[in-house]
Amino acid sequence: MEAPVDVAERSASHSLAVHTTTVLPADTNAYGNIFGGHLVALIDKTASITASRHAHRNVVTASIDRVDFRSPVRLGDIVTVTARLSYVGRSSMEIGVEVMAENRLTGQSVGACSALLTFVAIDEAGRPAAVPRLTLTTDDERARFEAGRLRAATRHEG
Amino acid sequence: MEAPVDVAERSASHSLAVHTTTVLPADTNAYGNIFGGHLVALIDKTASITASRHAHRNVVTASIDRVDFRSPVRLGDIVTVTARLSYVGRSSMEIGVEVMAENRLTGQSVGACSALLTFVAIDEAGRPAAVPRLTLTTDDERARFEAGRLRAATRHEG
Amino acid sequence: MEAPVDVAERSASHSLAVHTTTVLPADTNAYGNIFGGHLVALIDKTASITASRHAHRNVVTASIDRVDFRSPVRLGDIVTVTARLSYVGRSSMEIGVEVMAENRLTGQSVGACSALLTFVAIDEAGRPAAVPRLTLTTDDERARFEAGRLRAATRHEG
Amino acid sequence: MEAPVDVAERSASHSLAVHTTTVLPADTNAYGNIFGGHLVALIDKTASITASRHAHRNVVTASIDRVDFRSPVRLGDIVTVTARLSYVGRSSMEIGVEVMAENRLTGQSVGACSALLTFVAIDEAGRPAAVPRLTLTTDDERARFEAGRLRAATRHEG
Amino acid sequence: MEAPVDVAERSASHSLAVHTTTVLPADTNAYGNIFGGHLVALIDKTASITASRHAHRNVVTASIDRVDFRSPVRLGDIVTVTARLSYVGRSSMEIGVEVMAENRLTGQSVGACSALLTFVAIDEAGRPAAVPRLTLTTDDERARFEAGRLRAATRHEG
Amino acid sequence: MEAPVDVAERSASHSLAVHTTTVLPADTNAYGNIFGGHLVALIDKTASITASRHAHRNVVTASIDRVDFRSPVRLGDIVTVTARLSYVGRSSMEIGVEVMAENRLTGQSVGACSALLTFVAIDEAGRPAAVPRLTLTTDDERARFEAGRLRAATRHEG
Repeated sequence: MEAPVDVAERSASHSLAVHTTTVLPADTNAYGNIFGGHLVALIDKTASITASRHAHRNVVTASIDRVDFRSPVRLGDIVTVTARLSYVGRSSMEIGVEVMAENRLTGQSVGACSALLTFVAIDEAGRPAAVPRLTLTTDDERARFEAGRLRAATRHEG
Repeated sequence: MEAPVDVAERSASHSLAVHTTTVLPADTNAYGNIFGGHLVALIDKTASITASRHAHRNVVTASIDRVDFRSPVRLGDIVTVTARLSYVGRSSMEIGVEVMAENRLTGQSVGACSALLTFVAIDEAGRPAAVPRLTLTTDDERARFEAGRLRAATRHEG
Repeated sequence: MEAPVDVAERSASHSLAVHTTTVLPADTNAYGNIFGGHLVALIDKTASITASRHAHRNVVTASIDRVDFRSPVRLGDIVTVTARLSYVGRSSMEIGVEVMAENRLTGQSVGACSALLTFVAIDEAGRPAAVPRLTLTTDDERARFEAGRLRAATRHEG
Repeated sequence: MEAPVDVAERSASHSLAVHTTTVLPADTNAYGNIFGGHLVALIDKTASITASRHAHRNVVTASIDRVDFRSPVRLGDIVTVTARLSYVGRSSMEIGVEVMAENRLTGQSVGACSALLTFVAIDEAGRPAAVPRLTLTTDDERARFEAGRLRAATRHEG
Repeated sequence: MEAPVDVAERSASHSLAVHTTTVLPADTNAYGNIFGGHLVALIDKTASITASRHAHRNVVTASIDRVDFRSPVRLGDIVTVTARLSYVGRSSMEIGVEVMAENRLTGQSVGACSALLTFVAIDEAGRPAAVPRLTLTTDDERARFEAGRLRAATRHEG
Repeated sequence: MEAPVDVAERSASHSLAVHTTTVLPADTNAYGNIFGGHLVALIDKTASITASRHAHRNVVTASIDRVDFRSPVRLGDIVTVTARLSYVGRSSMEIGVEVMAENRLTGQSVGACSALLTFVAIDEAGRPAAVPRLTLTTDDERARFEAGRLRAATRHEG
């Protein structure tokens, strides 16, 4: 028998995660911009924190549903990765991630990348485990949830 | 005026890229499996090699269209990342990546992950640049190309 | 002649920086806790973002004035590094950093580490450069500033 | 009593391993070429995959018998590391590694480095363990094997 | 009952540790100098070796009491980190670290950074454990010890 | 015309380099020992410091002539890599490296690995450049030099 979830529901603000960092040479590609794979690793890591904070369980990345690179992130830029829960199924969680790139000298900030990922909570035996519901308070939260529910239905996920 | 592409077309086998590695502790998450973000970084890096080999130009990741994690990749596993060009637009290239995980002691291999990414070739000024056409010889290649063309049309990409 | 600062003053909330991450095996020492040097690297990197956001100039670490490790941070923990400006001299900035360690399964959080660092803004020639004043609104901000001013006086810094 | 090898012999093509990657700034030395130690780490890692695929056992590097750096590998180059089994003793395996460096824009490829390494298969207790014989089909394979046998005899290895 | 220390006392030369390395691009910040956090990680790692060599026990960093960055360390420089025990309490050890930066082409060397750290020896249960006394032979050693004793008294450490 | 060497000769003690570090999980293979490739990277880096200190020029690794792994280096061990110049040709330098592994709790130390590498000094145009002679004072130094000279003759190096 599976352990019950620890609370019935949590809000998206409970599990919001922010990862601010700077682009060092070790993070760049041969053109002096952030290496795309490095940025996706930061996105996955930050989203996994949001999934953990909602589920209070072990979580695994089930899929990266979309990553759009909109503008280059340059050496020295300040990068802010923000992960927010949009939809919750029985054991799956869809998380939207926004990446801002901020010029260190001017303070100007642009949306550099956005992503959607799906995580699944697992129990000690590695099987999918139930997660709390997502509290929906604002219209924006309800709209995000509905869009996530439609995407999950398309992917046949729980 | 833009520099012309160096040849009119290239085959998918010309740009195929294989990256074989092993999972060391530095690549793992807290559960002893490969950290998802690390795996996506390998996928992006290998796919960028395929894009470079086709375009003979600088290339940037435009989007990661889908990554599905199907089974965990464990510490000590041999990982084979194979990137193959499926569709080519004027300056965009869609690349399919398959990841196999091979048990070091039994030699058994499973499909652990698959991904679709889109790269864009850029010229010295950072503008999209034309790439060679993709030679289509087999029915399988024609089917992959058509599927890629439909996905690109959905994304409004060139 | 030195370029003037771009604004006369900024608040501490303008430059607050939060870096949330998780402890992977690559970050640990031989006992399975976070490697102290790795944690200090995160502290320095996050504090440098706060210094950059206040100064809108290049900044360098002048000194780490104190780091106290209060409780171990374990493999799998969620780590939140928060950097906040406490005192501003002519070109120097003192930044306080708090590190929280959060258990991934229980959500319990403890103060694991705190640190004080001093950064200096530099101009293109590498000389110390003036920075905006720090807006002081609350009694807490005024108390932090005064404590920082006394520490700076002890260190004979500007 | 030692566990028997799982098959009597395997061909060199069974254990061939290819590692294709690109040189990022994180891989370079102060002159903008690949850091030699990083390249040797890739060589050792790829050769260990070949040894594992032949032995289906744990393997350890016994010696690096020779690494020749023939031409610099530059930032942005595509690097292909190919490891091939040349000689097999009772528990030791000699592996030849060739490294090609490919210019990303021209597609021109040069032999940048070659290496010879010896691995030993070990059992659960860490003792040398028997490995399958190496199938010799072509004259080239027989010549490589004989050369490896002579080198092993010089080194007094099994 | 706690295991006794293995010897009554050890000299500072027994536990002296030297870490010589070079600054690669992977170690630098966006200005081409060593990233401060990376340097502090080397300082902490080298000091932990000194603490281990004195205590012959597990050790943890209790505090970094001061790090002064005096001159920039540049890409390509040879860096020498030297850690020396200055003071020993019942279970705590204060270690002074000096960092020299040496120009690769001229051989000129400058003192780039100095640091003071406090480590604590721990037993298998993670409790503070007694360490050998520090042999004091020269006047310089006695002066360093006394200065460390005063600093420890200020910090209320054992 | 080539720039002359800055001094006529230097002793081996002038260029001796010691790199002491500890084995963290990030440095290990799947069996919990140091990853062989990581150790060779440390060997190459330390030897390059010795070559730089003798030549006061840019140097490149020409070949790794031999690395023997004699006993495993375990997680938590203290590793000491010592590089010493043995032979000097016109522009080439042969460097012997010894690696000791020291148990952190017992202080027991074993010779874990030894290596021979050849570096070449290069001028600004990347051509081989003359290096100072090696001062030979002791019989041991003369014997090492003669052995190196014979190895270089076998490899047809300058």
